[in-house]
Amino acid sequence: MKDKIARFLDENEPESPCLVVDLDRVADHFRRLAAGLPEAEIFYAIKANPARDILMTLLPLGARFDAASIYEIRQCLAAGVSPEEISFGNTIKKESAISEAHEAGVSLFAVDCESEIDKIARAAPGASVFCRFLTSGAGADWPLSNKFGVSPAGVAEVLEYASSRGLRPAGVSFHVGSQQRELEQWDHAIGQASKLFLAAQKSGLKLDLLNIGGGFPSQYREETPALEATCDAIQQAIRRHFGTSPPRLIAEPGRYIAGDAGVIEAEIVLVSKKREGGRRWIYLDIGKFGGLIETMDEAIRYRIETPYDGGTTGPVVLAGPTCDEMDVLYDAAGYELPLDLKEGDRVRILSAGAYTASYSSTGFNGFPPLREYYI
Amino acid sequence: MKDKIARFLDENEPESPCLVVDLDRVADHFRRLAAGLPEAEIFYAIKANPARDILMTLLPLGARFDAASIYEIRQCLAAGVSPEEISFGNTIKKESAISEAHEAGVSLFAVDCESEIDKIARAAPGASVFCRFLTSGAGADWPLSNKFGVSPAGVAEVLEYASSRGLRPAGVSFHVGSQQRELEQWDHAIGQASKLFLAAQKSGLKLDLLNIGGGFPSQYREETPALEATCDAIQQAIRRHFGTSPPRLIAEPGRYIAGDAGVIEAEIVLVSKKREGGRRWIYLDIGKFGGLIETMDEAIRYRIETPYDGGTTGPVVLAGPTCDEMDVLYDAAGYELPLDLKEGDRVRILSAGAYTASYSSTGFNGFPPLREYYI
Repeated sequence: MKDKIARFLDENEPESPCLVVDLDRVADHFRRLAAGLPEAEIFYAIKANPARDILMTLLPLGARFDAASIYEIRQCLAAGVSPEEISFGNTIKKESAISEAHEAGVSLFAVDCESEIDKIARAAPGASVFCRFLTSGAGADWPLSNKFGVSPAGVAEVLEYASSRGLRPAGVSFHVGSQQRELEQWDHAIGQASKLFLAAQKSGLKLDLLNIGGGFPSQYREETPALEATCDAIQQAIRRHFGTSPPRLIAEPGRYIAGDAGVIEAEIVLVSKKREGGRRWIYLDIGKFGGLIETMDEAIRYRIETPYDGGTTGPVVLAGPTCDEMDVLYDAAGYELPLDLKEGDRVRILSAGAYTASYSSTGFNGFPPLREYYI
Repeated sequence: MKDKIARFLDENEPESPCLVVDLDRVADHFRRLAAGLPEAEIFYAIKANPARDILMTLLPLGARFDAASIYEIRQCLAAGVSPEEISFGNTIKKESAISEAHEAGVSLFAVDCESEIDKIARAAPGASVFCRFLTSGAGADWPLSNKFGVSPAGVAEVLEYASSRGLRPAGVSFHVGSQQRELEQWDHAIGQASKLFLAAQKSGLKLDLLNIGGGFPSQYREETPALEATCDAIQQAIRRHFGTSPPRLIAEPGRYIAGDAGVIEAEIVLVSKKREGGRRWIYLDIGKFGGLIETMDEAIRYRIETPYDGGTTGPVVLAGPTCDEMDVLYDAAGYELPLDLKEGDRVRILSAGAYTASYSSTGFNGFPPLREYYI
């Protein structure tokens, strides 16, 4: 990966900052996940990186698509995705969006409460729904445990309500949290799902869909399990909890597909030793509002390459270029970078292909959105 | 204000969400601040809201402009602002940006360390600089105390260095923190500045510029001092600490000028009582990534108008529409809203004219940037 991207950067010298994504690597990730979970339908979580080039890379490989909004659905349809291969995976949808999706042929929707079901029953009669249930988010660098999902005890009621409103209660979904690094979390969640299948059966509902969401990690600074280990953990958990009649399986990777395929090149704007006591601050030309919002609370810790790797390093506070105090990337995370770094040097932020460009602001402090190259 | 904006919303029914800014109100704020601080040159902090309509409203009133980037400087020049009336107020600047600003005629730059001075000395020889010093940020809802500025003890050294590099050390600046609500913070900072003037004089530097930054508040949920009270506190502090020979005074309001002049209209996408124990969640079609990023850590607490104001209220968690756990606006802040609120209702987020639209993401989850209307 690095070779192709490095070659592109060296040959083209694009203006800094910019994101370069290697589409071969995107395809490799998809194939590797498909090989690791051959029983799963893989719905790419478009929100991780909605670039058309990524959709067009994944489409011929058999990918399906998990859309967070009607805008992403429109984008899929424009790219030639068939509506049966789109899941409207956001539990928060305007009725007008549900209606437009339904008319376009989308028939699978996420829910986690009765009022969402009312909207779907009106706007997409007969559609299939899956109910998201809450997990703890433990073990994830970017947990997803509070805003989405009903408590497991409430799932049967939600699905029964869907059935009573003429919808097809297809199954359940969960999300172990983005950038999940603890393999046992998969077992907890899949075990919980199997109990929900049984409970639903007692209520007379026959579920046949298990959506295990995303959480497949990228390679940031902290060590993460290999993809194959994650896939093994999932398969073991499904065997353990569902035995010989597993349900239809859906996975929704986003970060795993796009993250490691991208590199952000940035420039050092200022190296400052202005603080007494000697903390060195390095200010880059990209920060939280230029695409690195996942450094919020220093949650996602990117690996950083510099021209002086191997040389003597020292502690550093890393910050972005805007006049906003919040635009500090890493302070407590204990980053150490070469002491030789100086203004004008370029650094590379690795595994930055997911959850970067589409987050970038339209123009905070006047800075333009992150430039993007797909090669 | 509300009448003009409300009339616009009623007559035009723009798609939700959108920001509507009343330019008359922008002008009123400028005039009110100019009346409250007649001795100050008022540099509008463009980053608060860089809309061309706002610049064009302020320009004929005698406003000057505080730019955070070369992009904002270009925007000023394109709007007809004279380069002498622009301050390049970001302490973090690429040398290429300094050079371009210098060639365009900009001659006033912020610094807080020697390495920034080296760049300015090379790229803008002879320019005037002011040195930002650190304040505590106490009393501010959006503090600015860590990333920018040198400790007061280091100011003289920085300015002496500027002088040695052929720059004109004009004075000092500080920022009491955005949305500052404690009047005594102004006295602390201005008192500190006067000590720095004296110390510089002992080093043979004659400073004549005091840049008191921004911090003039908008009317969010928490009570704030009236603008006039803030202006009085500043004037008293200047008399107390600078006596009968006050320096040239610069103020850099952003939030105060644009904040209260704008209203965001949003739509309720989902009202959910899915949680056991009965917490009511209301999901809007705007969240942290659509322009409300200042709700981070629930720092800025907007006033919210609904069609049922006056009716029975109950506790609510307010969240945005994206598939991101971080996209929760208010949870701990104790918001109470009418129990009658339902999907499809419109609500109005008041004092939302500053630090909203330009922060909004280019397309996270596919949602387009915040629509903006300047009337």
